[in-house]
Amino acid sequence: MSGHEAPLNNGVAHKTDEVLPFVEDDYGGLIVEMNTPMDSTCFVASLRYSLAEWRLQGKKGIWLNLPLSHVNLVEPAVKEGFRYHHAEPTYLMLVYWIPEAACTIPLNASHRVRVGAVVLNQNEEILVVQEKYGTLCGSGIWKIPTGVVDEGEEIFAAAIREVKEETGIDTEFLEILAFCQTHESFFAKSDLFFICLLRPTSFDIQKQDLEIEAAQWMRFEDSASQPITHKNELFNDIHRICSMKMEKRYTGFSTKPIKAFFDDKLGYLYLNKLDMNHPIS
Amino acid sequence: MSGHEAPLNNGVAHKTDEVLPFVEDDYGGLIVEMNTPMDSTCFVASLRYSLAEWRLQGKKGIWLNLPLSHVNLVEPAVKEGFRYHHAEPTYLMLVYWIPEAACTIPLNASHRVRVGAVVLNQNEEILVVQEKYGTLCGSGIWKIPTGVVDEGEEIFAAAIREVKEETGIDTEFLEILAFCQTHESFFAKSDLFFICLLRPTSFDIQKQDLEIEAAQWMRFEDSASQPITHKNELFNDIHRICSMKMEKRYTGFSTKPIKAFFDDKLGYLYLNKLDMNHPIS
Repeated sequence: MSGHEAPLNNGVAHKTDEVLPFVEDDYGGLIVEMNTPMDSTCFVASLRYSLAEWRLQGKKGIWLNLPLSHVNLVEPAVKEGFRYHHAEPTYLMLVYWIPEAACTIPLNASHRVRVGAVVLNQNEEILVVQEKYGTLCGSGIWKIPTGVVDEGEEIFAAAIREVKEETGIDTEFLEILAFCQTHESFFAKSDLFFICLLRPTSFDIQKQDLEIEAAQWMRFEDSASQPITHKNELFNDIHRICSMKMEKRYTGFSTKPIKAFFDDKLGYLYLNKLDMNHPIS
Repeated sequence: MSGHEAPLNNGVAHKTDEVLPFVEDDYGGLIVEMNTPMDSTCFVASLRYSLAEWRLQGKKGIWLNLPLSHVNLVEPAVKEGFRYHHAEPTYLMLVYWIPEAACTIPLNASHRVRVGAVVLNQNEEILVVQEKYGTLCGSGIWKIPTGVVDEGEEIFAAAIREVKEETGIDTEFLEILAFCQTHESFFAKSDLFFICLLRPTSFDIQKQDLEIEAAQWMRFEDSASQPITHKNELFNDIHRICSMKMEKRYTGFSTKPIKAFFDDKLGYLYLNKLDMNHPIS
């Protein structure tokens, strides 16, 4: 183990009458947060003492948040019975379930969320790009700008950001026309792809060089008549919905800011507002 | 480190002229998959040799998939420059970006996806529960059944499953009435909550004992007039949308099976089908 990294504690009797630093959670468990370095022998002694205490207290799920700098404690924690829960670049979260009863630890984030941006201008043109990488690279196919929604980012904001990044065009969000759920798109994770309708508020394209080969305003009809549109169901449905939208015969979901839950966290509800605005008959 | 676990290789010259086992990915990188145990000294030698080779070959992102049984290799990998990418109970995925150019490694799954199930019967009653745990526990508030969408599970299927699990009621999915995005709901992850409308096909409630305190068919009016409905915006919006739906004045998104992408993976598109079915004027 990493005993060679513990210059002071080695050979000294380990203090085992203190539990590791933690905060309680809302579900009868707690989160251990290791903020100062600790050698693994010391850690194992404290962890065993802590788990014995928490077991007596009837605690349930024990979360262990190990920053990257505490990587020396990963192996000892697993050997004490912890399992991986999730990880981000800077930390690894492990979990230990104390009760005999079935584990009710919530699952890790399961979905990657992406947006596709339909930007239609008043000349019945659609904003399209060709990408430098990915499955359509080199195919000559023009597609709508797409991208990944970051953790903590609103779906509509991601659509606006991606269009700006890839093409330099400023936009306003109008509505989500439809969305698509698929699976195993990224390792075992599932994928939600939101098709957003945006209104352009600028017109001069400044394409981004890193990922975008070309960008243009294309006549909507020409985009719809690309061979891919007939071969690929999603391309086809997007164009079909857009056609109806241009004829004002389709309603998607638009946004309503909302205090969603009991901690008054702000969020957005996406709903059919056209119907909501109908006068009561 | 875990040298004490390597009874055979210790003190033996390590074979460093073979790269670690890998498969190439579609983005100029590769995935290392460690299937057999390896002591950490041997691993570090092979890893250094492999990275030098891959650097010469112009490889980009190097993924390292370490099953829980290979926990002894986590610390050495991090010390060689790998960073955590994501983790599931049985493995930890690390990544190393070789090029000088900006890292284009895709982000980890960012969203937890949940469903709320609105089940309305023909007597204008709604299926509601009281939970044994969570923020509403002990409050006397009746709420719709809710739950987490598993990795690989369809949203509509999760709604049907949760209703069956919590109340024993069989249902058919009709449409998604609205959805809500919030942030930092579960560690740093964002949350998508889909409000699903279901039609019951059975009527006798068999409540689940583990998580559910009580379940009943409640007059829709009584549910809507609970004090929480006036205090909580989401409760309020759900009831408002349901009222309109009962008067046939609201349209959500319903499902269309689709081959979504270029690998012909099956998925579901959620869209406003009522509009789609309107005759072209």
